[in-house]
Amino acid sequence: MMNVNRRIVLACRPDGEPRLTDFRLESVDMPQAPDGSLLLKTKLLSLDPYMRWRMNDAPSYAPPVALGAPMVGSTVSEIVVSRHPDFKEGELVLGQSGWQEFAISDGAGLRRLDEAHAPVSTALGILGSPGLTAYTGLLNIGQPKVGETLVVAAATGPVGSLVGQIGRLKGCRTVAIAGGDEKCRYARDVLGFDVAIDHRSMNFRAQLEAACPAGIDIYFENVGGKIWEFVHPLLNPFARVPVCGLVSQYNDAGEETNKSNSSEFMRSILVKRLTIRGFIVTDFAAQMPDFLRDVGEWLSAGKLAHREHIVDGLASAPEAFIGMLKGRNFGKLIVQVS
Amino acid sequence: MMNVNRRIVLACRPDGEPRLTDFRLESVDMPQAPDGSLLLKTKLLSLDPYMRWRMNDAPSYAPPVALGAPMVGSTVSEIVVSRHPDFKEGELVLGQSGWQEFAISDGAGLRRLDEAHAPVSTALGILGSPGLTAYTGLLNIGQPKVGETLVVAAATGPVGSLVGQIGRLKGCRTVAIAGGDEKCRYARDVLGFDVAIDHRSMNFRAQLEAACPAGIDIYFENVGGKIWEFVHPLLNPFARVPVCGLVSQYNDAGEETNKSNSSEFMRSILVKRLTIRGFIVTDFAAQMPDFLRDVGEWLSAGKLAHREHIVDGLASAPEAFIGMLKGRNFGKLIVQVS
Repeated sequence: MMNVNRRIVLACRPDGEPRLTDFRLESVDMPQAPDGSLLLKTKLLSLDPYMRWRMNDAPSYAPPVALGAPMVGSTVSEIVVSRHPDFKEGELVLGQSGWQEFAISDGAGLRRLDEAHAPVSTALGILGSPGLTAYTGLLNIGQPKVGETLVVAAATGPVGSLVGQIGRLKGCRTVAIAGGDEKCRYARDVLGFDVAIDHRSMNFRAQLEAACPAGIDIYFENVGGKIWEFVHPLLNPFARVPVCGLVSQYNDAGEETNKSNSSEFMRSILVKRLTIRGFIVTDFAAQMPDFLRDVGEWLSAGKLAHREHIVDGLASAPEAFIGMLKGRNFGKLIVQVS
Repeated sequence: MMNVNRRIVLACRPDGEPRLTDFRLESVDMPQAPDGSLLLKTKLLSLDPYMRWRMNDAPSYAPPVALGAPMVGSTVSEIVVSRHPDFKEGELVLGQSGWQEFAISDGAGLRRLDEAHAPVSTALGILGSPGLTAYTGLLNIGQPKVGETLVVAAATGPVGSLVGQIGRLKGCRTVAIAGGDEKCRYARDVLGFDVAIDHRSMNFRAQLEAACPAGIDIYFENVGGKIWEFVHPLLNPFARVPVCGLVSQYNDAGEETNKSNSSEFMRSILVKRLTIRGFIVTDFAAQMPDFLRDVGEWLSAGKLAHREHIVDGLASAPEAFIGMLKGRNFGKLIVQVS
């Protein structure tokens, strides 16, 4: 039973939207833990938009996944064999095992998880990288002030939902952009956004303008493409734009997804004195203790809602991932592997 | 003799490059200073790129010049009539009289100038708004660190020349971009840039790449257009781009001046975690004392060079201004009005 490791590898580099045939589920021999290392069994696998970029063979902030190699990803794993003095069998850890049932680790970078403290799945969402992305990007770059207008795209996703809620706690007027009625209702009723707008509406632009009568002071960008085009003209002088993702553009191989050119963009950066700053979560890794303290407290105090979308079995990962890039998930997408 | 005030007004809003016929030299009655005010006689008028934008009837950070109104501008003026308790006749002040020989002021915003301290013309250049732009933009947004590569466009102009020299004092490798052999020589030999590149060269791109073997950490943007297109791919992760001007784009009425689109731009902001921030000099007005102290000291200590390009007579202003937008000036452009 434990002689086989099932994993999903990158079979082809996608041209545009990934297809099921770009992935391959394969069975390989169970890896053996040498002295000083651990055998980890994957319980939960996180699916996140950044993985789409890692499928391309293009320069980015991290190397691409090699053809034939397992897809990368954060996991909640159980230590099933420990040959490492610092870890015990049965412990749960946050690791980077990727899309596979088992993996070897030398212990570096593992974070022990305590089920008594919070459900371990939160280590992949609100208390994990998506949460840290939201917290650090909004506070360091967005710098929310009381009474300002904060617009959040993908507002029911794991990053956007926390950005909006922290913005609300900081006294901002918060405007959610989401896809479909159900997500918009959730953004308003559960996440507490002041307004939620469906980006699929025919009159999206007019609704966005109406939702931001005093303009936009912070736009938390994790979508790009069309929504950015509509947000951009509404930015106020001195607006801040943290850029942590461009999920609507990840399937493009570099072609144009919108009409405005970069001269026009530079002009508005100058005229409005905008601050546009890209970041990824590791840039602010040093703020992890602040993040865990603040968001942990808000969560315990019942001030924050979060939502998970769990799919069953490693084999479901490719389809769930492809759907996520189209906005089909509703909440933090997690694969229950075992 | 003092019954007439000659001034240059905006006759037409230019379509693209301004022409001489967009300006009109006219003589009007000498203004009279009411109680509590001053009559100022213009000695020196500063010509600066931002004035091109003020000729357009388009939203910007400052209102446009009205048709038939005098062009705006900073001036060194002599108080010829004082009916204000705080000012004496004969004093020299930095003011905003615009393109005219005389103006009335209520004293607000005037800065007294002391010829014993520094030549009064420096109040329009290295110790004035261009200097403050360079100092605050580089230090606040550029954040230069020892060993980093700083690229400066329009590097012999009043802003760029100080940016490069402060960058050198902060330990950066400094790369000048300028137009023509003479300016490049001056950038290297007098301003002390490590390398200077002529943007008119056929192989400008290759020269820029060669000049930045370790990439670009700071690009001080005051030009836009084509040069930005070449700089952009060379930016390092975490590069900073203070944007204080886009002189190459000021003559465009919004049409495309380059090919890259804003999706591509957002993508590189994210992948490289760039910080792009627009500013104008008044955003950092509170740092004027620091600026005057630091740049004043460096200047007195002989650590900074600067250069003025003086043209004679108010009537020369339009032609000099049009030439400046084409890079024909060499140093801070000033009109000697009287």
